[in-house]
Amino acid sequence: MKEKGSRFERSLIEELWKNGFAAVRVAGSGISHFPCPDVVAGNGNSFFAFEVKMRRSLPLYISSEEIKKLQDFSRAFGAKGYIALKLPREKWKFFGAEDLKKTSKGYKIDEEVYAIGKDFSELKGLIQSRLSECDE
Amino acid sequence: MKEKGSRFERSLIEELWKNGFAAVRVAGSGISHFPCPDVVAGNGNSFFAFEVKMRRSLPLYISSEEIKKLQDFSRAFGAKGYIALKLPREKWKFFGAEDLKKTSKGYKIDEEVYAIGKDFSELKGLIQSRLSECDE
Repeated sequence: MKEKGSRFERSLIEELWKNGFAAVRVAGSGISHFPCPDVVAGNGNSFFAFEVKMRRSLPLYISSEEIKKLQDFSRAFGAKGYIALKLPREKWKFFGAEDLKKTSKGYKIDEEVYAIGKDFSELKGLIQSRLSECDE
Repeated sequence: MKEKGSRFERSLIEELWKNGFAAVRVAGSGISHFPCPDVVAGNGNSFFAFEVKMRRSLPLYISSEEIKKLQDFSRAFGAKGYIALKLPREKWKFFGAEDLKKTSKGYKIDEEVYAIGKDFSELKGLIQSRLSECDE
């Protein structure tokens, strides 16, 4: 399972580089006593922290603790935190904490949440709209 | 040697968190086919990529290829790249590519270069002077 996770993280990293981001896998992201995500990426203007998930099907459940750690790291680093989710035969989709549905124990991504997930072009779009704000 | 390297990387990461940076160790920094450093850190304003070295004594020799990879990653990510060097009983010191002495095969840090290395307070000072420039 861990090895499979690493393979998916590496495929996300390939995609990030193709899309103009420098990206790294984080060592010991599950064991460090500091909050840390699976992948960190930047392109000189925007910085992202990703918690990487792959599933055969929805829903995906995520604990409150995992979301809090992603938010704590992202705030301290100066990044935007996203859940990066890969379903079979689908492209990567990205979800901010505000996109997720609350459950009694944490959060979930169901079909409804999945439909509003961002793809790569939308992540890049976020950046471009931010850049044009700065130009004004 | 590799395990010892990881221990030093972890100690740098502890220091970075103490100094207000979110920092992560990069997985597979020696084997990835993308250029990648040992440690990445940010504090919401400044972003650093570190190549981590420990030595019993000077000089430290660094290949041109290693410096080029650090510079390539740093440019793509939007970070400032530094060599982080730990000598026994000394605090961490940080060196930009411009601080290093050229040799026939690469670069070196000798006593003279070591003397102009930055410490943590100078790294943080760099940031604060940049921030005050922005305020003007």
